Amino acid sequence: MTMSDFPVLKASASSLRTTNPIRQIVDGMKTVPNPDLADIRLSIGDPTIFGNFSVPDSVNAALVEAINSKKFNGYPPSTGYESARAAIAKAYGSDPRAPLTPADVIIASGCSGAIELAISAMADEGQNILLPRPGFSLYQTIAEARGVEVRHYDLVAEKNWEASIESIEALIDAKTAFILITNPSNPCGSNYSEAHLLELLAVAQKHRLPIFADEIYADMVFSGQTFTHIARLSTDVPVISAGGLAKRFMVPGWRLGWLTIHDRHGQLAQIRDGLNRLSQLVLGANSLLQGVLPTILLETEQSYFDNNNRMLEELANTTVEAIRKIPGLQPIAPQGAMYVMVKIDPVALPEFAGNDSRFCERLIAEQSVHCLPGACFGVPGYFRIVFTSPKEKLAEAFARMADFCRKYHVSQE
Amino acid sequence: MTMSDFPVLKASASSLRTTNPIRQIVDGMKTVPNPDLADIRLSIGDPTIFGNFSVPDSVNAALVEAINSKKFNGYPPSTGYESARAAIAKAYGSDPRAPLTPADVIIASGCSGAIELAISAMADEGQNILLPRPGFSLYQTIAEARGVEVRHYDLVAEKNWEASIESIEALIDAKTAFILITNPSNPCGSNYSEAHLLELLAVAQKHRLPIFADEIYADMVFSGQTFTHIARLSTDVPVISAGGLAKRFMVPGWRLGWLTIHDRHGQLAQIRDGLNRLSQLVLGANSLLQGVLPTILLETEQSYFDNNNRMLEELANTTVEAIRKIPGLQPIAPQGAMYVMVKIDPVALPEFAGNDSRFCERLIAEQSVHCLPGACFGVPGYFRIVFTSPKEKLAEAFARMADFCRKYHVSQE
Repeated sequence: MTMSDFPVLKASASSLRTTNPIRQIVDGMKTVPNPDLADIRLSIGDPTIFGNFSVPDSVNAALVEAINSKKFNGYPPSTGYESARAAIAKAYGSDPRAPLTPADVIIASGCSGAIELAISAMADEGQNILLPRPGFSLYQTIAEARGVEVRHYDLVAEKNWEASIESIEALIDAKTAFILITNPSNPCGSNYSEAHLLELLAVAQKHRLPIFADEIYADMVFSGQTFTHIARLSTDVPVISAGGLAKRFMVPGWRLGWLTIHDRHGQLAQIRDGLNRLSQLVLGANSLLQGVLPTILLETEQSYFDNNNRMLEELANTTVEAIRKIPGLQPIAPQGAMYVMVKIDPVALPEFAGNDSRFCERLIAEQSVHCLPGACFGVPGYFRIVFTSPKEKLAEAFARMADFCRKYHVSQE
Repeated sequence: MTMSDFPVLKASASSLRTTNPIRQIVDGMKTVPNPDLADIRLSIGDPTIFGNFSVPDSVNAALVEAINSKKFNGYPPSTGYESARAAIAKAYGSDPRAPLTPADVIIASGCSGAIELAISAMADEGQNILLPRPGFSLYQTIAEARGVEVRHYDLVAEKNWEASIESIEALIDAKTAFILITNPSNPCGSNYSEAHLLELLAVAQKHRLPIFADEIYADMVFSGQTFTHIARLSTDVPVISAGGLAKRFMVPGWRLGWLTIHDRHGQLAQIRDGLNRLSQLVLGANSLLQGVLPTILLETEQSYFDNNNRMLEELANTTVEAIRKIPGLQPIAPQGAMYVMVKIDPVALPEFAGNDSRFCERLIAEQSVHCLPGACFGVPGYFRIVFTSPKEKLAEAFARMADFCRKYHVSQE
């Protein structure tokens, strides 16, 4: 037999166009760390790696009880157990401006599963969706896999990464399906004020567009900040919000996420039907976790969240203070979540002007410190720091970063 | 404001064409049970409902240990932890005719998630795939959501539900992407012999088609039967197999499934790439379960499986013996899994000739016994019994079924 007897079989076009830009950029970097220095990874948005952030013991205890009860091993309904959806409705629908019933909740395999459901139901092939830039790359990956065009509106660094409303309006056309916002933001660490959320709602209302709000970092904000679910600020603009356990309970691997549907005047009737239908394709999250979701959401002590937020804020402050002292780097101080974007001054660090991937690549090669280049989020000239490492680790990382930048710094006199 | 200020927003076409035929048929039935009789549900393929089939205690203990270790809360790689994939490769790749490495394994959110990945990567819009009839409806639901045409080949009741090879050949054209087989079968309870699997491989080889084998009921077969993974019988036909914990470990709600890729001569190189890309869309299964998968797969006592199979076989025998005595019903004896298909004799039961939905509807209305009509699986004139209920419950169900059939039976003299 010859090789031609066994031709390579074709994969689907949609699978082959499914691309994670982060993977692509990181794989393209020559990232062999300095063998004399231990790796410090400030690149991955996983707060569990170092043990300083951890799931509440009460949650683990409830989960163990659920396992031993053997009551939650069977198939949940495709949108999730009624009790789990009721718990989400209670935890997130307490505000009379945006009430929720269990029928308004769809449980999915992680927040990424919830995002996939929402994009697949809300946007059709040939339509376009508006995404923030800088933004989380998964939205684009999903949209492109589904044949949906992505258009990026600008977030303005100088305004704490508020969205440019003009840039949104300039992108909208008859084929626009929805406006996506991420609040608090990955990768920016920003938290929008009510005033800014009202601006976003106004542009949505003007163009009769729904909003899809990725609110996975809900309530993870720092002193002086208030987090507001955008759905609570309008009675006319339909909002679908994505959430999950991943970040707030420090368990990203558990894969329990959800959508909450805030319909207004029945505008989401058909999309709700589409979401319910799509939920039947693969069923949702693990049944054990669904079984303990009421305990997790309704009985976790507020002090757990307060403590996490305080720790995150301290680490954020440490990060911003340290980076501000490094020549050529300008951090945009975060207001929540676990990220800070840092601008690379092209004049002070000409070696890396317009080439944040090279900055990150050299930082790994020389100092074994790992960050993601802004290109991963659509904004060259920046890089992202995940500041969930323990304080000493961060201090070591920033000391190395300072050495690194001093080496390349060109003083402007 | 008038209502027209708030038009209903359109959902995507693919979401609206996503349909679960079982839901559609069952929702269309008037299924108000007889209020004087307790419901007996022989309709749902979930063996955990009655407590007679249960996850091994050793698995629960391992899971509790993993939870308390707090080591498995972070993000696994999109195809799954290396250790979990290695365990699957070891457990299912021991036969030298179909070896597996961790790179040949993709972990997904349940077997349904694995099936969704496989269909989405292996078939493109405009192509067709060949599905068994009677068959599990999810394949069709997924394919239609993805714009893939489904064509059904016949399984022959008289030959223990073997596939009609002629019917397969008659359906193949240049746009055929793959042949799907379910072995052991839901809804048939059949288990194919090596001889029949070789016939299926021969037709695949002749037409240069890969096989997608849903083997979620692998090894769940009765006395005198041997289960064979189809990938072990050919060195030329590429096979992708789907499996999972759901049925073998009696935990369908846990949502841990996988694909194993058995490439031959590099024919699956592009499809493997597509699968890896698609796995990035939503990430796979729960990290805690992935963490204990090596223990689950490699350390569960064989006696657990033997005992389950023995119990299933006893219940299957009880079912077949009881149904054989009921006038007008003809069970096709199962060889494995947890299902039996029963033929409704149209002459003996003319009331239900060609109307299995009406048979199931009346059986609920009069006797509160729930079964799924053959129409749910593409074969009118049959109904499906799930025989995982405890023996006494089954006996009660079959006594009621006998009363029911005697009432409608027309003797042929």
